[in-house]
Amino acid sequence: MPEILPSRFLFGPGPSNCYPEVTAALAHPVIGHLDPVFIERLDNTCEGLRTVWGTKNARTLPLSATGSGGMEAAFVNTVADGDVAVIAVNGLFGERMCEVARRCGATVVRVDHDWGSPIDVERVLAAHPHPKVIGAVHAETSTGVLSDIAPLGQNKGDALLIVDAVTSLGGLEVLADEWGIDIGYSCTQKCLGVPPGLSPFTVSDKAFERRIENPRSWYLDIGLLGGYAGAAGGSTRTYHHTAPVSMITGLQAGLNRILAEGLAAVQARHRAAGAALQAGLVEMGLELFAAEGHRLPSLTSVKVPDGVDSAAVRRYLLENFSIEIGSGSGSFASSVWRIGMMGPNANPASVTLVLGALKEAVAAA
Amino acid sequence: MPEILPSRFLFGPGPSNCYPEVTAALAHPVIGHLDPVFIERLDNTCEGLRTVWGTKNARTLPLSATGSGGMEAAFVNTVADGDVAVIAVNGLFGERMCEVARRCGATVVRVDHDWGSPIDVERVLAAHPHPKVIGAVHAETSTGVLSDIAPLGQNKGDALLIVDAVTSLGGLEVLADEWGIDIGYSCTQKCLGVPPGLSPFTVSDKAFERRIENPRSWYLDIGLLGGYAGAAGGSTRTYHHTAPVSMITGLQAGLNRILAEGLAAVQARHRAAGAALQAGLVEMGLELFAAEGHRLPSLTSVKVPDGVDSAAVRRYLLENFSIEIGSGSGSFASSVWRIGMMGPNANPASVTLVLGALKEAVAAA
Repeated sequence: MPEILPSRFLFGPGPSNCYPEVTAALAHPVIGHLDPVFIERLDNTCEGLRTVWGTKNARTLPLSATGSGGMEAAFVNTVADGDVAVIAVNGLFGERMCEVARRCGATVVRVDHDWGSPIDVERVLAAHPHPKVIGAVHAETSTGVLSDIAPLGQNKGDALLIVDAVTSLGGLEVLADEWGIDIGYSCTQKCLGVPPGLSPFTVSDKAFERRIENPRSWYLDIGLLGGYAGAAGGSTRTYHHTAPVSMITGLQAGLNRILAEGLAAVQARHRAAGAALQAGLVEMGLELFAAEGHRLPSLTSVKVPDGVDSAAVRRYLLENFSIEIGSGSGSFASSVWRIGMMGPNANPASVTLVLGALKEAVAAA
Repeated sequence: MPEILPSRFLFGPGPSNCYPEVTAALAHPVIGHLDPVFIERLDNTCEGLRTVWGTKNARTLPLSATGSGGMEAAFVNTVADGDVAVIAVNGLFGERMCEVARRCGATVVRVDHDWGSPIDVERVLAAHPHPKVIGAVHAETSTGVLSDIAPLGQNKGDALLIVDAVTSLGGLEVLADEWGIDIGYSCTQKCLGVPPGLSPFTVSDKAFERRIENPRSWYLDIGLLGGYAGAAGGSTRTYHHTAPVSMITGLQAGLNRILAEGLAAVQARHRAAGAALQAGLVEMGLELFAAEGHRLPSLTSVKVPDGVDSAAVRRYLLENFSIEIGSGSGSFASSVWRIGMMGPNANPASVTLVLGALKEAVAAA
């Protein structure tokens, strides 16, 4: 009996549905990781990543790991025993940064914020006089909060600024060079409309010069990865590990799809979908979770109404509409829902569908 | 203008061509990483991996990284500062084990062998009285050599045995439990006939109990990954990182394809293709590189005849036949070719094709 393939509306915090061009590219015939045709694809992918990151960094490439692997690469290459890492924590992924940095040997200075609030730049900058790195999340996937990165970059002094752009890259404005980001990492499965499995990564020259030589991780060593992606300059490629050729082909297709539509147009589409969704939720009488003025368009957090069984609503949506939305994170697991409008899903039809389905599910569950 | 997709015969050291079932699965609609349908797929994938690994290990899962990431996971979870790692080096991947273990803090005791020779078990066992780990490569991708693992496992004493099965898993016999392998890692792009991007990984209970708690790597921490893959027992899944759902769906399809054909039949197909290729190369007057009696059927190394330009032959094959074969590794880069007959390519047609094309290329180049 052939397997029935579920077609989901992926309106959770990720993965989102893929652009059709990506699905087609994943099924391209596999080619060798050293094939001249693949090298061209990898170069074109890195070029597309530079555009969405807003950077000229030569060392901009897709890491062969998920977004969390990108986070690990950011810290293992910049902090070693005793280095001070100031981390802004306003959700789960700030928490995770602390844990990852601690394991790399860093002395972590946490700057805690209420979940649902944006980062308080002044408190972060005042936390330590001369940290080696400052870590901050641009778009907190756990809470749906957008924080302002530019003032951190403008006032970071000698520190390296590490930024998580997991739920913003490709759908919201990210200007790595202008904002002073030294290392940025993201994932493929949100606004880029590609399946999970790679981590778009960018490294400034300053960060590269101040990197840890021979870091604990061989796999994520940016000193070795430059040659792999041709970012070290010149035409020589050095074999490091076998590139995940199908996923990179998929990412290339997603980036080219976005750039063909126009990055500004894609961002406008994400903003419009997020605004329409948030207006519709409020109209339904629901309360948004993230602080006003700091809400991500790509991922909306909304409070579960009193007396409503959060999990039952999500189950109802999945079973009756094949719609996935997310639970909350951490202590908000059953009191918050997270609704993503990312990649190809950032459109009016998705908004109308999820609002109508949620209304029915809340009434029924 | 639509891109012309190159259809290569991937007869190098990997990636090999994919099974058609895998290509189809990669294009399945993406589903959520916490979707019940995906959890079933992941469980089924882990079950298939147990079969090809010859293990009952609960902790058997696809790591979200390539084979080199699997190598790193093996060492970062088992050795820390000052732990002794005895490593058998008979090619590039034994070398790499030394470097990865050293970065994890291990005191590395290298046991060097000529490239092209199998591992000398007695020398490896005599190298240190009580190492924390012993590392060995089952199938050296760099030289085409197969080594005997069982005697290492039988005599390892209290050490943990780490084995690289990158070019054997799924195409040659691997019996992790019977041979005494404590941690095994592999890749997807060789005998399994799946694109690169995941590392099939297995951990014995003994290795899990003796693991490093809070290892330097958060991303590859086997203490956290058990919950992710449901290997910790019970039905509770803990979110660790977003699973690469499309690649895992592809791997599941590859495993199920292999198990439908029958693992023994697939292995017989690899043995037959390797034997026919090696006989054909000798008949052409070429000299095989790997020591007789220890040649991998999945990957054959052959010496480039005197006066023949190795790179020109490979270029001729690619340009005229769309056939990829590999150069040699390390100091054998231009004096050895590597020809893989792996996954769907392990068949008589591939053998006849590559022999005929190589004959023409050597004459022409």
